Amino acid sequence: MYIARSRPASEDEEAAPRLLVSADPLVGWTDLRRWQSLALRRRGATASAATALAKALVPSSTSGAFANGEAFWDIAHAALDDISGDARVPGDVPLTNALDPVHYRDFMTFEEHFSFGYRWQNKPVPDVMYELPISYCGNPAAFIGPDAEVPWPSYTRLLDYELELGIVIGKAGTGLTPETALDHVAGLTILNDISARDIQAREMPGGLGPSKGKHFACATGPYVTTLDSLPADGLRMRARVNGETWCDTSSAEMIWSIAEIVAWTSQGEQLQPGMLLGSGTCNGGSTIEIGKRLAPGDTVELEIEGLGVLRNRLGAPAEGGWLPEPRKPRAI
Amino acid sequence: MYIARSRPASEDEEAAPRLLVSADPLVGWTDLRRWQSLALRRRGATASAATALAKALVPSSTSGAFANGEAFWDIAHAALDDISGDARVPGDVPLTNALDPVHYRDFMTFEEHFSFGYRWQNKPVPDVMYELPISYCGNPAAFIGPDAEVPWPSYTRLLDYELELGIVIGKAGTGLTPETALDHVAGLTILNDISARDIQAREMPGGLGPSKGKHFACATGPYVTTLDSLPADGLRMRARVNGETWCDTSSAEMIWSIAEIVAWTSQGEQLQPGMLLGSGTCNGGSTIEIGKRLAPGDTVELEIEGLGVLRNRLGAPAEGGWLPEPRKPRAI
Repeated sequence: MYIARSRPASEDEEAAPRLLVSADPLVGWTDLRRWQSLALRRRGATASAATALAKALVPSSTSGAFANGEAFWDIAHAALDDISGDARVPGDVPLTNALDPVHYRDFMTFEEHFSFGYRWQNKPVPDVMYELPISYCGNPAAFIGPDAEVPWPSYTRLLDYELELGIVIGKAGTGLTPETALDHVAGLTILNDISARDIQAREMPGGLGPSKGKHFACATGPYVTTLDSLPADGLRMRARVNGETWCDTSSAEMIWSIAEIVAWTSQGEQLQPGMLLGSGTCNGGSTIEIGKRLAPGDTVELEIEGLGVLRNRLGAPAEGGWLPEPRKPRAI
Repeated sequence: MYIARSRPASEDEEAAPRLLVSADPLVGWTDLRRWQSLALRRRGATASAATALAKALVPSSTSGAFANGEAFWDIAHAALDDISGDARVPGDVPLTNALDPVHYRDFMTFEEHFSFGYRWQNKPVPDVMYELPISYCGNPAAFIGPDAEVPWPSYTRLLDYELELGIVIGKAGTGLTPETALDHVAGLTILNDISARDIQAREMPGGLGPSKGKHFACATGPYVTTLDSLPADGLRMRARVNGETWCDTSSAEMIWSIAEIVAWTSQGEQLQPGMLLGSGTCNGGSTIEIGKRLAPGDTVELEIEGLGVLRNRLGAPAEGGWLPEPRKPRAI
């Protein structure tokens, strides 16, 4: 199954994304709320009651839908099984970000990529990389979707993409093992963990991970594919810039499995429906490690087998902006 | 003004925290939703309409209330000005966490503390500490309130507290300067950024900041104090463990001001009502830097001038838990 959200046709504040499901995104989608509303009316609900109930059962938020649990999945399956075509939407409907994550955490699981990263920082690969999947948390408010322009902040001159697998949590849970973890995964999506390398390079020696180097934008989409619609053996991952292939690798290179990442995340805390966990950049999946550089206006296309193509164009650098005044160290 | 949330009297799923405001927490609180409902009824609303409208105007979520903008603050001020005592709650009402942050980001602004931290990691203080306020993002789902027991995860033997100032964002905004930033701050609260030092020490060399060393719990409260109820010149900050004072310092030691932290956060991204920004641990504000160690059952009291006392007892270590199987490095 494929899950997406349509882009509202207007800027009107009443307009909101609509959840869509499909058995094949090339053929078309079903508008889940519309489908549910029609189903309720066929079973005797008044028009206004059907509208209100369908809105609660199928919210605009993907995280909110997953929080509804089996009630949501029952509707999604019933809509897919319905051959009447009642709430049909064409395959080329404009999509917005499939996710509105309640929390976003990004791991580092591709050995060739992280080995490069430590060389870039003039450091040996630390032992922990082979002992635990480590992560940093990002800004869930900065997510953009397919075909949205990437904002270019005033404080950077060096924007980069990162081609990653996005793991979408569908169900709460704690203390899981790799054997039980996949039951809590709603599906996978493409993730572009957009980075400002110059400020990231200044921040990282502080040891708290990236902050302003990441928090301005992150792209996902175009849809979420459930695990039963995907091959189990690793997915081909490709990046193209202005049509030219800059990366071609596989998710089979991850040294921690999706099940291990989810199980480790669930230790000592509750997974939440609508959490997004990133695989970390795949091998060769950013410009710094292949000696390239992006420019304003460039089009970045990330493609992952079974997950579609996530296309975004880089905007023009913002002007102005405030920078802190440096401090003088005291002798301590 | 002081803002808190009452702890629901039952575990009933319909029970939810109630927002409280006060001019003096020692004297008592006003239940804002109840006050608003009574005010609506006095002006001709039916009981059920008043209940529904008051619930929307005064939600259970502090972040949701701030998202209502001036409409919320108007109600809070009117309730404080009302001397009728209509929706009065006693000063000793049990409180839950004052905040349900939509996002949590923690900075490092106390020079003596961070200088110790780098010595602890055998590293010099990096230049960036004096150039930019850097931060890591935490887990907004892990927040606990006053008097809640601190969960002790199975994967750590070394729990620690961190005494911090919590900066509560009340209003959206982007591209702010220190001159305009404070208008976006709803108030301050006490923050205990609870840490598992053993796993944190293993994770930090990975360079992504802390992850499982932090994500299991974070405490705030007991209330949020608006800036107009606080002295401008730095707040006395104290930590006591089992009644013994282990830290006594001042927020005046921060090398970045609250206004600078907020302004820098707002560059290239949108502040959101209900974001929580931490000052980072104050000087001497954790056990590792003073050669102490916590044990299960210890009571940690954090006190900040004007912000009250945040008291939490450490729970017993959890048993079991799953740990990843270490990997063998490939030669790359």
